[in-house]
Amino acid sequence: MIKVGIIGLGTVGTSTAQILKENADVISARAGTQIVVKRGVVRDLHKDRGFDFQITDNVDDILNDDEIDIVVELMGGVEGAFEVVKKALKNGKAVVTANKALLAYHRYELQEIAQDIAFEYEASVAGGIPIINALRDGLSANHIKSIMGIMNGTCNYMMTKMTNERVAYDTILKEAQELGYAEADPSFDVGGYDAAHKLLILASIAYGIDAKPEDILIEGIQNISQEDICFAKEFGYVIKLLGIAKKDTDEVELRVHACLIPKEQMIAKIDGVMNGISVVGDKVGETLYYGPGAGGNATASAVVANIIDIARSGKSKPMLGFDRPMEGKTLTLKAASDIESKYYLRINVSDKRGVLAKITKIFEDNNISVETMLQRPATNQSANLLISTHIAYERDIQNMIKEIASLDFVNFTPVMIRIV
Amino acid sequence: MIKVGIIGLGTVGTSTAQILKENADVISARAGTQIVVKRGVVRDLHKDRGFDFQITDNVDDILNDDEIDIVVELMGGVEGAFEVVKKALKNGKAVVTANKALLAYHRYELQEIAQDIAFEYEASVAGGIPIINALRDGLSANHIKSIMGIMNGTCNYMMTKMTNERVAYDTILKEAQELGYAEADPSFDVGGYDAAHKLLILASIAYGIDAKPEDILIEGIQNISQEDICFAKEFGYVIKLLGIAKKDTDEVELRVHACLIPKEQMIAKIDGVMNGISVVGDKVGETLYYGPGAGGNATASAVVANIIDIARSGKSKPMLGFDRPMEGKTLTLKAASDIESKYYLRINVSDKRGVLAKITKIFEDNNISVETMLQRPATNQSANLLISTHIAYERDIQNMIKEIASLDFVNFTPVMIRIV
Repeated sequence: MIKVGIIGLGTVGTSTAQILKENADVISARAGTQIVVKRGVVRDLHKDRGFDFQITDNVDDILNDDEIDIVVELMGGVEGAFEVVKKALKNGKAVVTANKALLAYHRYELQEIAQDIAFEYEASVAGGIPIINALRDGLSANHIKSIMGIMNGTCNYMMTKMTNERVAYDTILKEAQELGYAEADPSFDVGGYDAAHKLLILASIAYGIDAKPEDILIEGIQNISQEDICFAKEFGYVIKLLGIAKKDTDEVELRVHACLIPKEQMIAKIDGVMNGISVVGDKVGETLYYGPGAGGNATASAVVANIIDIARSGKSKPMLGFDRPMEGKTLTLKAASDIESKYYLRINVSDKRGVLAKITKIFEDNNISVETMLQRPATNQSANLLISTHIAYERDIQNMIKEIASLDFVNFTPVMIRIV
Repeated sequence: MIKVGIIGLGTVGTSTAQILKENADVISARAGTQIVVKRGVVRDLHKDRGFDFQITDNVDDILNDDEIDIVVELMGGVEGAFEVVKKALKNGKAVVTANKALLAYHRYELQEIAQDIAFEYEASVAGGIPIINALRDGLSANHIKSIMGIMNGTCNYMMTKMTNERVAYDTILKEAQELGYAEADPSFDVGGYDAAHKLLILASIAYGIDAKPEDILIEGIQNISQEDICFAKEFGYVIKLLGIAKKDTDEVELRVHACLIPKEQMIAKIDGVMNGISVVGDKVGETLYYGPGAGGNATASAVVANIIDIARSGKSKPMLGFDRPMEGKTLTLKAASDIESKYYLRINVSDKRGVLAKITKIFEDNNISVETMLQRPATNQSANLLISTHIAYERDIQNMIKEIASLDFVNFTPVMIRIV
């Protein structure tokens, strides 16, 4: 019999305990052994939660319990969780976590400490979708060319609604908050940070690359308006927040931002709160993984799958997919300014003579070549210039945006969305 | 160092050897050990293939070679492959195969023989998509409610072309043959047998259910015409060949046939030669896996992933996902006649008075309730009745079709497509 201790009995922790109980028949048949929760840690002991296992508010009751084989860390946070998990590993306990922030900052230290002890984290990326499993094991024969993922359900829900129902950003954010899809402070989701944590985890598995959130380009969806969505529709695109990892020769670019995606691509077809991750391998080509990226049961499904894995084999695969670095080939992180992309810009200008000529001159001066341009009347005697470019360097675009923003007939900093 | 012997050096075998060589850097880093092909078996020794490993035409040169750790069976066929694989296992060698026919008939015997020796078969279902991995490991916490998959790229290519370009079945079959997507004798693909083999493998992992191709409902796409596709479009459906496994209480239904699928469903959006499999778990909800279902490199990507798995852990998960049967809950195969579905029928009738009344009377007599009906003129003074029904029993539909087919004003056996 395998005994589990759960640290943190919020939504995912409660669902984990419930699944282990409700699906015990199929779980024990698949694992070849019974798996039971022995103890759970909560913050407030006085709330009765109706669990049929022991409740404590002291993590050491789990970490020091010799009978507990697997510690499930669902407490959240970074440094506190790091201390708890380290102690669990030092006590020889296998660890399962859903904590993406912990991994975004400490995954390599954890790999070092875990060594031969199982450390699993399927639920940390894309909730119920077994994407770690797919990338680490299923696609292991491939050099990964790229990963492009819808990794944040809140943003995808909002972008889908904005596209299908033509509602404004603020309206839909409020609705998402009422539905419980977005937090009271939504900046972690809509600012792209949640997706960035997940992207960093996948990038380690795909490329063996160590990077922290501070090291990469992270933008959110806060500036996207109906004008942009209309432009996208007109030119056959859909706008989504993507996490992107892309390799060229010996550099890897990592970035999170809104993208214009050609609407025929599979990833453009993923709507609502669902997540989807497209992975291109040099041998397999494109594979894509779709499913619920959040929610108690979906996330706990991944947590329990990890528990079953550990019960089955007792031994971890290399935690981050690489048993050792690739010989003579260390991939490095590409500087954000070196990224190449096509770009879309919305420039709101006062509707005066000569404006278009001045703007296009600045494009030219910055080595940026225009692919399509639309001018549309906006409010207050202003017009929107909607422009897509050919491939350009990020640094050139950023310089150009600064230059354009400083012009007196430009009403606010141009909105820029990269085109996939 | 892990040494591999490959039996069968056709497209997939050759790609397997190439990937192990070309991607040796990333493979050895991930596996933690070098993996090399020591020997390969071919039928004709006289063709020079330019391999840098030993070639033989005698399988025993691999099966009896003590240095070979992993036997990769890519020879195809059922009984011959079964003998070879059994012998490999008896000699203590891990086995990797892409042979779906072998598994459709002998998977439980192989599991029995393999015991603790690794036996992997990711490439047998949906080529490069790690669906076995996902279903066996990633979703192991779930009771699987259903699996619906586009598991045959040839059929999906044909249906996509018929839908998008309005070409006739025979025209597109010829084109598929010229492109190498369909065999000279295409019946294994277009008749649904290839998909059935794959479905049976997935059903074992999901449900622990043993069934052979002869036990289940298998139909192909041969009778589908432009009339059906137009009807589908008009009512918001797409027609695709699906493999379906569905559980209700203690029965599992397994079937392969063309389906009308609501066009908003993710699986309806999978076009061309691509495969896609939707799995619904009781806890995770729907997840979907998309990618190339065939091709040398894509299939070999899965073969090599299995080799890496074995090199990493040396030990197999329970081969078919269940370490032991579920206690007190044996799922049985539902009789095809007990399947319930909505149905679409195309009935070609001579354009005479009273025909509609007679047909609708037969519907009523067979307890089948019509949801929509369209009558359209066809050629030769005949008309097509295009009818969709509410949920009905398969046995009632089959009886009704027989009855209708025997009427003198009905020009050929009605075409029936089930609605998902």
